[in-house]
Amino acid sequence: MDQFLIKNRVLGVDISMERTTYAIVDVRGNIIAQDYFNTLDYPNVNEYISVLVDKVIELTELNGGYDTIRSMGVSCPSANFLTGSIENAANMPWKGVVPMAAMLRDRLGMAVAVGNDAHVSALGEHVFGLAHGMNNFVVISLGHGIGSCIFSQGRPHLGAEGFAGEFGHTCVIPEGRQCGCGNKGCLETYCAERGIVTTAHELMQDSNEPSLMRQQERLTPRIIFECCEQGDAMAQEVFRRTGRTLGFSLASLASVIDPEAFIFTGGIAKAGHWLLDSAREVFEEHVFHNIQGRVKFLRSTFNDRERDVLGASVLAWGIKEYSLFK
Amino acid sequence: MDQFLIKNRVLGVDISMERTTYAIVDVRGNIIAQDYFNTLDYPNVNEYISVLVDKVIELTELNGGYDTIRSMGVSCPSANFLTGSIENAANMPWKGVVPMAAMLRDRLGMAVAVGNDAHVSALGEHVFGLAHGMNNFVVISLGHGIGSCIFSQGRPHLGAEGFAGEFGHTCVIPEGRQCGCGNKGCLETYCAERGIVTTAHELMQDSNEPSLMRQQERLTPRIIFECCEQGDAMAQEVFRRTGRTLGFSLASLASVIDPEAFIFTGGIAKAGHWLLDSAREVFEEHVFHNIQGRVKFLRSTFNDRERDVLGASVLAWGIKEYSLFK
Amino acid sequence: MDQFLIKNRVLGVDISMERTTYAIVDVRGNIIAQDYFNTLDYPNVNEYISVLVDKVIELTELNGGYDTIRSMGVSCPSANFLTGSIENAANMPWKGVVPMAAMLRDRLGMAVAVGNDAHVSALGEHVFGLAHGMNNFVVISLGHGIGSCIFSQGRPHLGAEGFAGEFGHTCVIPEGRQCGCGNKGCLETYCAERGIVTTAHELMQDSNEPSLMRQQERLTPRIIFECCEQGDAMAQEVFRRTGRTLGFSLASLASVIDPEAFIFTGGIAKAGHWLLDSAREVFEEHVFHNIQGRVKFLRSTFNDRERDVLGASVLAWGIKEYSLFK
Amino acid sequence: MDQFLIKNRVLGVDISMERTTYAIVDVRGNIIAQDYFNTLDYPNVNEYISVLVDKVIELTELNGGYDTIRSMGVSCPSANFLTGSIENAANMPWKGVVPMAAMLRDRLGMAVAVGNDAHVSALGEHVFGLAHGMNNFVVISLGHGIGSCIFSQGRPHLGAEGFAGEFGHTCVIPEGRQCGCGNKGCLETYCAERGIVTTAHELMQDSNEPSLMRQQERLTPRIIFECCEQGDAMAQEVFRRTGRTLGFSLASLASVIDPEAFIFTGGIAKAGHWLLDSAREVFEEHVFHNIQGRVKFLRSTFNDRERDVLGASVLAWGIKEYSLFK
Repeated sequence: MDQFLIKNRVLGVDISMERTTYAIVDVRGNIIAQDYFNTLDYPNVNEYISVLVDKVIELTELNGGYDTIRSMGVSCPSANFLTGSIENAANMPWKGVVPMAAMLRDRLGMAVAVGNDAHVSALGEHVFGLAHGMNNFVVISLGHGIGSCIFSQGRPHLGAEGFAGEFGHTCVIPEGRQCGCGNKGCLETYCAERGIVTTAHELMQDSNEPSLMRQQERLTPRIIFECCEQGDAMAQEVFRRTGRTLGFSLASLASVIDPEAFIFTGGIAKAGHWLLDSAREVFEEHVFHNIQGRVKFLRSTFNDRERDVLGASVLAWGIKEYSLFK
Repeated sequence: MDQFLIKNRVLGVDISMERTTYAIVDVRGNIIAQDYFNTLDYPNVNEYISVLVDKVIELTELNGGYDTIRSMGVSCPSANFLTGSIENAANMPWKGVVPMAAMLRDRLGMAVAVGNDAHVSALGEHVFGLAHGMNNFVVISLGHGIGSCIFSQGRPHLGAEGFAGEFGHTCVIPEGRQCGCGNKGCLETYCAERGIVTTAHELMQDSNEPSLMRQQERLTPRIIFECCEQGDAMAQEVFRRTGRTLGFSLASLASVIDPEAFIFTGGIAKAGHWLLDSAREVFEEHVFHNIQGRVKFLRSTFNDRERDVLGASVLAWGIKEYSLFK
Repeated sequence: MDQFLIKNRVLGVDISMERTTYAIVDVRGNIIAQDYFNTLDYPNVNEYISVLVDKVIELTELNGGYDTIRSMGVSCPSANFLTGSIENAANMPWKGVVPMAAMLRDRLGMAVAVGNDAHVSALGEHVFGLAHGMNNFVVISLGHGIGSCIFSQGRPHLGAEGFAGEFGHTCVIPEGRQCGCGNKGCLETYCAERGIVTTAHELMQDSNEPSLMRQQERLTPRIIFECCEQGDAMAQEVFRRTGRTLGFSLASLASVIDPEAFIFTGGIAKAGHWLLDSAREVFEEHVFHNIQGRVKFLRSTFNDRERDVLGASVLAWGIKEYSLFK
Repeated sequence: MDQFLIKNRVLGVDISMERTTYAIVDVRGNIIAQDYFNTLDYPNVNEYISVLVDKVIELTELNGGYDTIRSMGVSCPSANFLTGSIENAANMPWKGVVPMAAMLRDRLGMAVAVGNDAHVSALGEHVFGLAHGMNNFVVISLGHGIGSCIFSQGRPHLGAEGFAGEFGHTCVIPEGRQCGCGNKGCLETYCAERGIVTTAHELMQDSNEPSLMRQQERLTPRIIFECCEQGDAMAQEVFRRTGRTLGFSLASLASVIDPEAFIFTGGIAKAGHWLLDSAREVFEEHVFHNIQGRVKFLRSTFNDRERDVLGASVLAWGIKEYSLFK
């Protein structure tokens, strides 16, 4: 009976530009231990991997031992689950194709899976969050960029090559604002962080109305949100316009997908009703009639980092166990 | 051994406004027998069902017997597989919600499934056509309206309530042409039959250029196509514009879905390269870069009616066998 | 945003002959509130259902309200998930076919699913227990009877009509002991509760060796286990024989199924190594060579009632939400 | 439009000890071209692979070209789909682990999958044969050995490591006949080819009754079958006993699996009612009561080789397309 050790914990890692959070997570999504370091301290990817492996092993040794860990899941922008690689990440320090799952597996001696943030967020919401019990829903992550993950029939739709989900790069304004991806008019250029700030500056330039925003040294969505909360009409208009653009795009998506819910994650989602009320209004105007009034607009109740660590743990449970050392 | 009769055939029915085609189909998609009648001869749905049941039973009795038939699948505009009903079909004579699967099952004494045309077409392409071996692809049906069916992970994505696929009602031109659905600027108002004819009339009005189209009593996409083939520049411009609008919408869809292929069905798809070359050109301009050059644009090689009868047979095989009489 | 109430709890009910345990369970398997009553107090099934509904509603009203509950899952011997019915339960007071899911749904106004104990146990182990991360495993429940549930490709194998899992009624000794099912030599007649006691009596009759078992007024597997722990050789022989018979049957099952693990639940599993060491020994002798040494023998780490309430909650999350009152 | 070539054919290969059959198969299971060679002419596996690749390429060049071929599927005894290898095949000339899928892929430049005969037969029956429309059934292959493949929920159950299906090595007579696998009393030693012949010899030795079998120089199941057909009572008794043993084992399997049907393939299945009537009789006596009378016993209507070539083509369509040369 006792000759088989059950490895009942996994590692969940959330890599963002700012920080790398790594945690030991159990079957029920309890975070047993967690720590983090600054991602940008290690711009060389080989060095980064070495540091991550060392830190992770240290954490396991302090918390039950390496032998209790079944596998590792990693959330990282531009990661492709199907290839295990991070591919041309616009917002990360490592260029080109980084075979992160293979690099980590070889050094850790256990199975490793990677997924992009929207994919991992969707897994986290499905197993531990608002999407529990839903088979068809869409996670929309609103931050530096805009990502999405469609759950179809209880599983994430990753696409033929694992590239699905680029909702942020669907064109909303032909010949509109220039996007970092090379195209023009991408949703991201209006509804992600920089797009919102751009809209704020345009509004300030186009009128002489007073606004709390004019007094800020440097505008961010968070500061614009605070202006909204203080009753600033122009700040509210920023989110209202953003929401209208977002709602218009969501309507097209919902007419094709018929989801049970949209779940909004990421920093911009914190703008809450300032953004989502107008998004919903335009959404209902444009969505096909048999879907009207049916799609839930939900803001994730997780802290973003917690959800992504938990989502990464779901990724880890989903792959086949493997051990170099048995 | 011989006490069990294997029912190795199914019924496939394709209902369109013009005609109802019904066939006996075997495991490999051979059409054993087939006939049709005019759908509009029976505007009362109860009468229609009675006639269909009578004709179908007669066909089975002439071709191996009722006892060899396992189940029935039905393709019908606005049919919802999950509810078994036809729901507020814009283009059919029967109003409201028609529980067609239940009505047919009760009278035929066997299991019956219904699906809308894009859903059924996608099943037909997946099992017997160009999508065989593909897990992630999209069927786009171009006719009176524009429907779509996304295959995700080898199965059709039907949505939370079975309403997925309304690609024709995604908005391409805010405040654009009035659509029958109540909204404005739907893709359908530009790229389905009437939209294309409207574009042709607009082009004729906006210029004094000569065109073969000006000599036609009544324009249809088919006639415009024939003008294209005869070298008419303005007719070619009709499809070029149509294709550009379509390609723009397909780019957004592909950036989110990452399909292996788009498969085009329906009468408009017959316009072929006049439509699809410009669609593809605009598609490649607007789709997210990691998907560029990867998505196949394919025209269904089936006759539409054959595909839908075969697709309906796939629907029939997919449901649980049931017999009132055993 | 706030117009959509997310129902983030379910009801999990575990019905056994002795008691009915009902609980409110959240997304992560936390039991929010729990109570029980004696099943046999209500031998009339209509009365039983009424009482269960009243008690469950009362529990919800004391703990967050009926409106927070999404659906209900029920574990019950002989329940068939596919039909929603309890069918000819040998060990329950209600005879014939009881459409329990429909009866509960109609009175509660929410979606209800039922499953037999092995099915529900397997769900509990898969989501919250030892089988987390396993796609192919078998739960073996050892108690009054012997049930099983095979997980295949991450989902429970229920069979064509929902009757899969009767491992206890596979014949191990042709023309062996008479089983309550009508057949002879069923595994259950050797390795379930009464079978083990029968084996003990046979051993006592067949020898004059002293044994602590001889001093017992009434033998049960638990008492035999306690005799084992006190070093009683004959009691140890009871479990050794039981284990050999069990191991032989498990070898056949594993050669066909190739599971990652067997997970043992139920009262008999508490006999632990007295039973499972010999089971494993015979198993390894008889299983096909390429499976030897690979299949884990694991004893569930849950309390049986906790696991079944949690497993029932998994059943509840897996069905489509439905509300009579919205 | 035309820049994408659709590869609408696959290669299906069936390797048995006697011969290797290779064919080009289209989407609907039409065999476009087919040829074979003697497997044992190439006992060195590298040479065998080279010859197979050469012959296959030649066949494609004569029939539409290499460029029309999407992928290859291979049926081979002891092949493991999950690893792509043939593992310790008892009945093949190549010893140890042969990574056949990888070897063929590297030389052919296209995707290759392998599967064992029961797995491939089950795919063939599911897509093109008696199991079309069934989600839960079991193929039992009766020949040199006895293999099985359980379809669960529409997909083959391969087991945790791909080793599922060793029904022939489940023990039916403890301490019974010695099996080539090292164990005793395996089903195969009674119901596969040599086992049947052994039973015939035992019957002849145990009595003085006359029998046509006594006049045969060398007994085979086929010859025993012919004696049955000529009314020989002892030959009939051989299959009756074989059937009783088989039926007993099938009852245990069905009580656990609840299949819709058993489909019998392989040379022994040709014995038909001489074998299967008694199998069914014992089956119904021993299977759990709620499954009695429900499980169909069906003999495959395919020629074995045709089914395995078609099943191999299903394997080929199921894997991701890959080309070394694009």
